[in-house]
Amino acid sequence: MKRGINHHQVGDSVETYLLIKSSKKGIASNGKPFLTLQLSDKTGEIEAKLWGIAPEDETTFVSTVIVHIQGDIQDFRGMRQLKIKSIRPTTGMDQVKIAEFLPSAPLDPNDMLDKVIQYIFEMSNPKIQRLTRHLVKKHQEKLLESPAATKNHHEFVSGLIYHVVSMLDLAKSIANLYPSLDKDLLYAGVILHDLGKVRELSGPIVSEYTIEGKLLGHITLMVNEIGEAAKELEIDGEEVLVLQHMVLSHHGKSEWGSPKPPLIKEAEILHMIDNVDAKMNMMDRALEHVMPGEFSERIFPMENRTLYKPSFHEKPLEY
Amino acid sequence: MKRGINHHQVGDSVETYLLIKSSKKGIASNGKPFLTLQLSDKTGEIEAKLWGIAPEDETTFVSTVIVHIQGDIQDFRGMRQLKIKSIRPTTGMDQVKIAEFLPSAPLDPNDMLDKVIQYIFEMSNPKIQRLTRHLVKKHQEKLLESPAATKNHHEFVSGLIYHVVSMLDLAKSIANLYPSLDKDLLYAGVILHDLGKVRELSGPIVSEYTIEGKLLGHITLMVNEIGEAAKELEIDGEEVLVLQHMVLSHHGKSEWGSPKPPLIKEAEILHMIDNVDAKMNMMDRALEHVMPGEFSERIFPMENRTLYKPSFHEKPLEY
Amino acid sequence: MKRGINHHQVGDSVETYLLIKSSKKGIASNGKPFLTLQLSDKTGEIEAKLWGIAPEDETTFVSTVIVHIQGDIQDFRGMRQLKIKSIRPTTGMDQVKIAEFLPSAPLDPNDMLDKVIQYIFEMSNPKIQRLTRHLVKKHQEKLLESPAATKNHHEFVSGLIYHVVSMLDLAKSIANLYPSLDKDLLYAGVILHDLGKVRELSGPIVSEYTIEGKLLGHITLMVNEIGEAAKELEIDGEEVLVLQHMVLSHHGKSEWGSPKPPLIKEAEILHMIDNVDAKMNMMDRALEHVMPGEFSERIFPMENRTLYKPSFHEKPLEY
Amino acid sequence: MKRGINHHQVGDSVETYLLIKSSKKGIASNGKPFLTLQLSDKTGEIEAKLWGIAPEDETTFVSTVIVHIQGDIQDFRGMRQLKIKSIRPTTGMDQVKIAEFLPSAPLDPNDMLDKVIQYIFEMSNPKIQRLTRHLVKKHQEKLLESPAATKNHHEFVSGLIYHVVSMLDLAKSIANLYPSLDKDLLYAGVILHDLGKVRELSGPIVSEYTIEGKLLGHITLMVNEIGEAAKELEIDGEEVLVLQHMVLSHHGKSEWGSPKPPLIKEAEILHMIDNVDAKMNMMDRALEHVMPGEFSERIFPMENRTLYKPSFHEKPLEY
Amino acid sequence: MKRGINHHQVGDSVETYLLIKSSKKGIASNGKPFLTLQLSDKTGEIEAKLWGIAPEDETTFVSTVIVHIQGDIQDFRGMRQLKIKSIRPTTGMDQVKIAEFLPSAPLDPNDMLDKVIQYIFEMSNPKIQRLTRHLVKKHQEKLLESPAATKNHHEFVSGLIYHVVSMLDLAKSIANLYPSLDKDLLYAGVILHDLGKVRELSGPIVSEYTIEGKLLGHITLMVNEIGEAAKELEIDGEEVLVLQHMVLSHHGKSEWGSPKPPLIKEAEILHMIDNVDAKMNMMDRALEHVMPGEFSERIFPMENRTLYKPSFHEKPLEY
Amino acid sequence: MKRGINHHQVGDSVETYLLIKSSKKGIASNGKPFLTLQLSDKTGEIEAKLWGIAPEDETTFVSTVIVHIQGDIQDFRGMRQLKIKSIRPTTGMDQVKIAEFLPSAPLDPNDMLDKVIQYIFEMSNPKIQRLTRHLVKKHQEKLLESPAATKNHHEFVSGLIYHVVSMLDLAKSIANLYPSLDKDLLYAGVILHDLGKVRELSGPIVSEYTIEGKLLGHITLMVNEIGEAAKELEIDGEEVLVLQHMVLSHHGKSEWGSPKPPLIKEAEILHMIDNVDAKMNMMDRALEHVMPGEFSERIFPMENRTLYKPSFHEKPLEY
Repeated sequence: MKRGINHHQVGDSVETYLLIKSSKKGIASNGKPFLTLQLSDKTGEIEAKLWGIAPEDETTFVSTVIVHIQGDIQDFRGMRQLKIKSIRPTTGMDQVKIAEFLPSAPLDPNDMLDKVIQYIFEMSNPKIQRLTRHLVKKHQEKLLESPAATKNHHEFVSGLIYHVVSMLDLAKSIANLYPSLDKDLLYAGVILHDLGKVRELSGPIVSEYTIEGKLLGHITLMVNEIGEAAKELEIDGEEVLVLQHMVLSHHGKSEWGSPKPPLIKEAEILHMIDNVDAKMNMMDRALEHVMPGEFSERIFPMENRTLYKPSFHEKPLEY
Repeated sequence: MKRGINHHQVGDSVETYLLIKSSKKGIASNGKPFLTLQLSDKTGEIEAKLWGIAPEDETTFVSTVIVHIQGDIQDFRGMRQLKIKSIRPTTGMDQVKIAEFLPSAPLDPNDMLDKVIQYIFEMSNPKIQRLTRHLVKKHQEKLLESPAATKNHHEFVSGLIYHVVSMLDLAKSIANLYPSLDKDLLYAGVILHDLGKVRELSGPIVSEYTIEGKLLGHITLMVNEIGEAAKELEIDGEEVLVLQHMVLSHHGKSEWGSPKPPLIKEAEILHMIDNVDAKMNMMDRALEHVMPGEFSERIFPMENRTLYKPSFHEKPLEY
Repeated sequence: MKRGINHHQVGDSVETYLLIKSSKKGIASNGKPFLTLQLSDKTGEIEAKLWGIAPEDETTFVSTVIVHIQGDIQDFRGMRQLKIKSIRPTTGMDQVKIAEFLPSAPLDPNDMLDKVIQYIFEMSNPKIQRLTRHLVKKHQEKLLESPAATKNHHEFVSGLIYHVVSMLDLAKSIANLYPSLDKDLLYAGVILHDLGKVRELSGPIVSEYTIEGKLLGHITLMVNEIGEAAKELEIDGEEVLVLQHMVLSHHGKSEWGSPKPPLIKEAEILHMIDNVDAKMNMMDRALEHVMPGEFSERIFPMENRTLYKPSFHEKPLEY
Repeated sequence: MKRGINHHQVGDSVETYLLIKSSKKGIASNGKPFLTLQLSDKTGEIEAKLWGIAPEDETTFVSTVIVHIQGDIQDFRGMRQLKIKSIRPTTGMDQVKIAEFLPSAPLDPNDMLDKVIQYIFEMSNPKIQRLTRHLVKKHQEKLLESPAATKNHHEFVSGLIYHVVSMLDLAKSIANLYPSLDKDLLYAGVILHDLGKVRELSGPIVSEYTIEGKLLGHITLMVNEIGEAAKELEIDGEEVLVLQHMVLSHHGKSEWGSPKPPLIKEAEILHMIDNVDAKMNMMDRALEHVMPGEFSERIFPMENRTLYKPSFHEKPLEY
Repeated sequence: MKRGINHHQVGDSVETYLLIKSSKKGIASNGKPFLTLQLSDKTGEIEAKLWGIAPEDETTFVSTVIVHIQGDIQDFRGMRQLKIKSIRPTTGMDQVKIAEFLPSAPLDPNDMLDKVIQYIFEMSNPKIQRLTRHLVKKHQEKLLESPAATKNHHEFVSGLIYHVVSMLDLAKSIANLYPSLDKDLLYAGVILHDLGKVRELSGPIVSEYTIEGKLLGHITLMVNEIGEAAKELEIDGEEVLVLQHMVLSHHGKSEWGSPKPPLIKEAEILHMIDNVDAKMNMMDRALEHVMPGEFSERIFPMENRTLYKPSFHEKPLEY
Repeated sequence: MKRGINHHQVGDSVETYLLIKSSKKGIASNGKPFLTLQLSDKTGEIEAKLWGIAPEDETTFVSTVIVHIQGDIQDFRGMRQLKIKSIRPTTGMDQVKIAEFLPSAPLDPNDMLDKVIQYIFEMSNPKIQRLTRHLVKKHQEKLLESPAATKNHHEFVSGLIYHVVSMLDLAKSIANLYPSLDKDLLYAGVILHDLGKVRELSGPIVSEYTIEGKLLGHITLMVNEIGEAAKELEIDGEEVLVLQHMVLSHHGKSEWGSPKPPLIKEAEILHMIDNVDAKMNMMDRALEHVMPGEFSERIFPMENRTLYKPSFHEKPLEY
């Protein structure tokens, strides 16, 4: 996979591994069933049709399966499409891993987890420290790979922990400038604020909302967990309530999903840090391939604005 | 207390028991301390000044104390005021109870609780039944006397259970008309939707928001409790999640404090029933003393509207 | 019409009666005119092309005509289409009625009218009774078949009277629970609130807004009619004004089309009952074919929400 | 009434006629009843206390009575107050008329009515002409003296007809610039748009909302009257509907009280002309006494703005 | 160009001059490049495909080039399309001018400019006069041909000056009715309010936003220019500030792009006049081809309303 | 001024210097003029009445004069008031300076200016550097003492430069974390964003809006100045436009006073940094004197929230 599927042109022949992101059955005009496959690697996605399928193909070529494929890139109504010549599901022999086929955070998840744990070590309030440590440990496995969202920002493998680590560094530098801030609270708030997403979202490959995600949401799920953790760890004291409030209020306004607005200084700052990091991520990606003197695509979650790259800024490296 | 403090005119002399709702110290222009007492019985409130107090008076005449008082009703800048001639705190000998000095629901709290329990018995889903029973039992004592709000509607002793019982009857008659409704869910939702208020509000006498009430709110508190109850009772299954959603969404919109809107039919109906009962209560009280052909005072939580009593309607009985 | 057009698959041959809902002329690439027909029966709709038409066909195959048709169900770009082999307009000989080709209320319109009249008989205020009786009589014929809306809820034949009857039962049960309500007013409000729709909408087959419907709307039209009826019946007294206000305010807010908000208790309750019945209708239909554990389609007039059917609820019968 | 009550200083003795705008009974600290009178002439208002009243005084000195009064202007907590030495109600002998005691339009009401009738004569569509003529005649007496509002703009005697005449001249000049406008419609819309205020408001002296004004509002009242007038005059045709729409939509948006927005060109222009004339009136009065280089008081119905008078503009004449 | 491209039917052969409004390269299914041309004359636009192009064609047939073309009008999926038989770019020999191929104002631009200058001559405040004269002169050339917008209203050649002239006549007639208005300010405000559009928009042929138009907007651009002009002309005094405010506030509200609302009477009137003229233009065009008794297309910038032409109005001439 | 006026109790006698913040003439009930003085030092304010004044006193005891005063602190309706025994204006002999009587930033203004200049030195884009340097120099004197607002945040002497310096440090630490940010742009945006306040506000002592502040606002004023500076310095290039956009858009939304939203990444970040620093300042001050476990006063510009200080936080030092 030297080049990646996104770099192939119409007319190229390809032989490569690709991940099936979705598979949908249709009936052709000749009455025979076929599959529309959405195939991806780290660089992007391409559509392919698998014609004249047998019944067993429907259960073989499903979402999250990695396939080995041979075919040609064609033009179909202005879109690239992969014409399949041969396709087979991979086995252990192929030695391929899903993570290699999905866009992911630029840092190693385990290094990021180490950094989170380092921040936890720095806390001086033992109640906050124990609660945070407990919840990180409980969800550690999923935290390593969960995206931070299904779209808009940090919607890639390990996006959640990447978002947390960026926010921790931001929190540290802001707390150094405004020493009245309680660092323990702020770090714990950063680490826990979106941790409920490991239950709200179905996972890194096909990221969808779970039923409890839709009916309760990641905020309520994590507020509940903080309460349960305190019971389990037999931690009393206002720290529990305050941490629950930090998570509950981090969307800032009831219209944005927080039934209570931030009523503690660190909660307000947590909301702002979250906002800064999410928008930096959106803006950097929107401008990634934009030439100086030109405008980006519209960014929906930023009021549909289109950003300008000043003509005195540098060209993107890989253009 | 034949007549009640609200029925005395300027010029009357009174000798009666009254409850201190609040007590606030001030310094007179002669430099001496005094107390401004807000005194109440079931019929209303009156202000009194206690001049020239001794230090121990500050700790004697405090909120929730019932006092025996002699004095005259005077006019002070257009308001009635009680000029105190003698005042003493009551003891067991006086045989007076706080409940007699506060406005309260028109039904007996224990009868209402029996009715709630009757509705629980009618449930056929055992998980919903056990969860609801458990939580009612846990908060039974406070449920008997808690108001449903600090103002606007059902803001009196036992207001919460009175609101619940009215809603249960309403739920029953609606469910009979629309048989697709799940009565178990609807009844459980009615019973639990505001139960968190026993923790959000400080109690029936001086009803204020508690700290956890302000930082988390009654909705989040009860959602948490449902989860904890399920753990304790070892109840699994989607009923837990669905009940949590019923409580979470009963304010209807995120702007009104529900981070998720109702996504289950019974949750939407719960929201509507809550609305009907709360508004009926507000409207009945606003119109209570209004003569036919006249308008009520403005009702703040109903967009500040003033209601009209048609001239062909009857006069209030006790006018 | 044993099965209904909606139950035919691609490949089926059909011979049946269908109603033309709309007919639109086009010019084919060979320069010849053709008609695009939208055909329906109670179960649904299907599109058909009538190629190579003669001039008289344009006036024969028009909206509201019932045709006898033979043809095959084909696939056209993923949609079912009816390929016409033979088509003829029906005559009296065919003994078919439009009502059989349109979705309609589940109760008999005449039974529903009897129920409305029964409610009118129960009124004790003679002015309200006479006004209501007069207006129902005046529009009786159209009331029997009018839909309650062009879309969203009760948008079927006799939908209006079905909506009224459901609301009357709801009004009765609520008035029994809150005896301070004036039943006469409430029933009259329910019966008249949407009666202007018989003038606002063009009728049950092709339900569109009339010009007076667009320029004045059903609320203003009925408020005017109440005034005219009172003149005609020589009824004086505030009942006229109050009934006009009930109709005027039943949308609840000026943003929703009521220039005055409800200022009478029964007007507020009318608004709420209308809301409950409309939403129950929308929700029941959205969930009709949804399996337990799954979500419905989005419901546009309910803030585009998608509803969840709990997994412990029953499967739809006819799935 | 050479000077007017507003021009008297503290310390002056006055002997003059004044109109009682309101009269309110109170009980003095000595237990005796007194009246608080709000007295006015064209220049303004002053408060007076009538102490030690006899029972018959309560029914003599009531709202809309003109009194002859002798007294002194005093200062009471920073406000001017009239200390009454003698007071008596006037009789026919005094030859005083209410109109002389109220602020009023700068033109003669009968001249303005002549102008309105002249505009009606210029109409060429006989249906529009007859409807307009009929309704003006019906309400002619009240139209001559009604204010256009209880506050904000044209809230003085004959304010309504003054507003109409200004708008007619504005309509004429705009219609001359945009000849596609239908002058008949526009003039009729101007004349009828606020005519319902003669029923919505209680009259020129104590201008309050009537019950039908509160429950239906001037827009709905006039829309009804146009319909009734058409029946009475046996006028058919779309002109009736279109005129009703003009009145119905003239507030421009449902939030502002028009259940339908303007859907006819002349209706949109009517809304704009209304806006221009109302705001010119507000702005002129707000700036009347402002010196160049200074700001006016806040104007509530103009989003609470305060207007600036440029320093190169002229000083107000009478400063 | 007797008839214009908009009046040709499918099947016609045409030989005419047309302006290329846009040209976009595509790759056909046979792998060869082609151009999609959007061609226009004063009457409208048509699409054409230029197949099998040579590399030099890509730079020849570009936006703003006038071509001589022969071809046939065909139907392509319900849209008219021009099948090109021969095409060549024009030269000086063809004696064609771009202005002839674009919709434009119904008056001669130079006559309109004379009228603007006439209004400037009528001003009596020399500072306002000189500033206005200077800025008109500076942008005179572009003012003659600039549209007033890219869409919605006056979006044609010379649309800006046409809009200004209409508003000046409107301003004059309003100022005559309300003599308290400062005509100099009002006229200057009208002339300058949208003059920044000559920099905000790229020009009359392909009207797009410039970079400074997007980053600052026409309001800020013109406010800056007024300041610079005052420096250059060495004009002091509040007139400069007041004129800047007139331009700054003419959108009326911050949500509509004016950081300050109108705080001067003439600024408020300017905002209203702008609104009247823009809406008259939109409404006249929306109704141009509508038959009496029918509704127009939806007008997006007027809250998406559709306007009704009363059935007693006249038919459009050219229908 | 060891203690400061805010620390004196009712009953204290004082002899001290105080600054007159405002002086207002009134007429006493005995007809004699008096002055109501608002007096302040760094710690707070107190009211005093100067009775029986001579005409020259009105011009002596005016705003911004420092007086030497002897008197007693009294209680007047629950407020402290200073009863004046003797008062005289100060002269050079008193050696008192206004700055000593006003709340001010905690850092030395000249040190802060040095820091700003240091940041300018670090810029590498010479155009941005020169423009920023020029404008800082031009307004240097006022920048040293101007507040950042009339209320809400940084509303003290040198509040503007204090706000700028805090934001610069914040900008630096954020830019270090997100290296894609253009530091030059960000620093220049921070330094210039509120610099227009030196013209919008009247100055540090009696901080009111100037006329140009009200009619144009600080944003428009500074955008104009950047343009003028570029002309003067003969700087071309997009840097000018981009800097103008940075200032123009820094309020984030049109409703908040920015006619264009941020369309450049650094502009968005500038808006966020401004928000963080302003809110930290508001929150720190609101919580300054709050005890752990208690709530602050309501903070109006933060949606009227009241902040909670967790009970595990420390007590304020000086309580």
